[in-house]
Amino acid sequence: MNREELYQEIQKKKSFLCVGLDSDIQKIPDHLGNSPNALLAFNKAIIDHTADHCIAYKLNTAFYESLGSVGWQIMEKTLEYIPNNIFTIADAKRGDIGNTVNMYAQAFFKHMNFDAVTVAPFMGRDSVDPFLEYEDKWVILLALTSNKSSKDFQHIQSNGKALFEHVLSTSSTWGSADQIMYVVGGTQADYLERVRKLVPDHFLLVPGIGAQGGDANAVVSQAKNNTGGLLINSSRGIIYASNGTDFAEESRKSAKALNDLFRSHL
Amino acid sequence: MNREELYQEIQKKKSFLCVGLDSDIQKIPDHLGNSPNALLAFNKAIIDHTADHCIAYKLNTAFYESLGSVGWQIMEKTLEYIPNNIFTIADAKRGDIGNTVNMYAQAFFKHMNFDAVTVAPFMGRDSVDPFLEYEDKWVILLALTSNKSSKDFQHIQSNGKALFEHVLSTSSTWGSADQIMYVVGGTQADYLERVRKLVPDHFLLVPGIGAQGGDANAVVSQAKNNTGGLLINSSRGIIYASNGTDFAEESRKSAKALNDLFRSHL
Repeated sequence: MNREELYQEIQKKKSFLCVGLDSDIQKIPDHLGNSPNALLAFNKAIIDHTADHCIAYKLNTAFYESLGSVGWQIMEKTLEYIPNNIFTIADAKRGDIGNTVNMYAQAFFKHMNFDAVTVAPFMGRDSVDPFLEYEDKWVILLALTSNKSSKDFQHIQSNGKALFEHVLSTSSTWGSADQIMYVVGGTQADYLERVRKLVPDHFLLVPGIGAQGGDANAVVSQAKNNTGGLLINSSRGIIYASNGTDFAEESRKSAKALNDLFRSHL
Repeated sequence: MNREELYQEIQKKKSFLCVGLDSDIQKIPDHLGNSPNALLAFNKAIIDHTADHCIAYKLNTAFYESLGSVGWQIMEKTLEYIPNNIFTIADAKRGDIGNTVNMYAQAFFKHMNFDAVTVAPFMGRDSVDPFLEYEDKWVILLALTSNKSSKDFQHIQSNGKALFEHVLSTSSTWGSADQIMYVVGGTQADYLERVRKLVPDHFLLVPGIGAQGGDANAVVSQAKNNTGGLLINSSRGIIYASNGTDFAEESRKSAKALNDLFRSHL
């Protein structure tokens, strides 16, 4: 999906919402059981009830890998179930030397058909380039993450700029705003102005709303741009909105509640 | 496997060799075919012929993920086939927020029984801590990687130190030299003295020998310590030593040739 198509979906649905399918077999409602197939049934029910109310799904690979190859099967089947008009993100945070990244690109863009993959910037340009060779596919590069320890290295100062600012200014020369997005945590609203100065046109994927404490309203006010420019992720707040037989219906309500907030900005 | 046991294996085998099973279905000998099972047969033959001549195997997750869930099965079966006295590394370069890293730790240390996993440091301490809770398991943190673009960010200067030095000095307070190793590329021999000043006791995992141009002799001379302190990885130079029916025998010869070099240092 390209940037124009993504913006059209944002306008049509009046939503910036990305639903994070960080689905944990230990946390899904008891009545579903705890087999890998229960996890797939859970994901399908969440997708059935939220697809009309979000523009993206983000599958966190860790939650599937924790079950091994069977978990990868659930990830593959979940991805296939997502309607074509919805943007899909493999939240994989990969990053390696070029010949290895070629293989990750095959994994996420060819074997599976994700629209985007999250990538860690530590290894520099040649660890990102192979992903950029795929047309209408996206790299979502970590810039300023939502966790407390993001300060350990991402705020290290060099020549009057923090490392996350070096990541933004350097990597934005590697490809266009039609190929690269950035992860900026919803808990980092104080820095959104500095982020937007360096990458005014790029989409930002914003996790950390809800369970992690980020303020969705503050993020949208400060960071939306003239092609939308935002994918705001909520995982636990939506998929675990209820632990009962009404979990899917409650996930829809949580998605709609976030959209009520987004609608006032669109 | 703990540090003492690892050093015992180094002394017993007179070797620092880690064999990288970056096995690519497109590159294995034609006579094996190109099914996922051919990849497993290839790995088993390499292991049969090199296990007496190496102290570690490193499985690069990208090469298995490129085949999807079937590839993960091959990775699981390959790991099970490796003898217990050999150290095993999931070269996964993961890194995420704490609740997600818990899932990666389950994937690599519980569901599969790797001794170690490689981790990217960009997200800081809370992205590493959950791995450190597992006894006799290891985090191998990226410090200074073997690729050319490592200079993009790893050499950024702050307070008179490069980012890779900040990574070493900060992260070495998170856990002991019995829990943390570092990736330092074999192409970075010029910096080994600076690395060893900051982490004299830690094991270093050194990729980049062979196909990437690193000099194994220079690395060992400068970086070995009094508990060995080195796992020197060779992937393509060993597993693709021949493309014929003698591939496994030739892989053994390549492993032995590297050990001849290591033996003079041990």
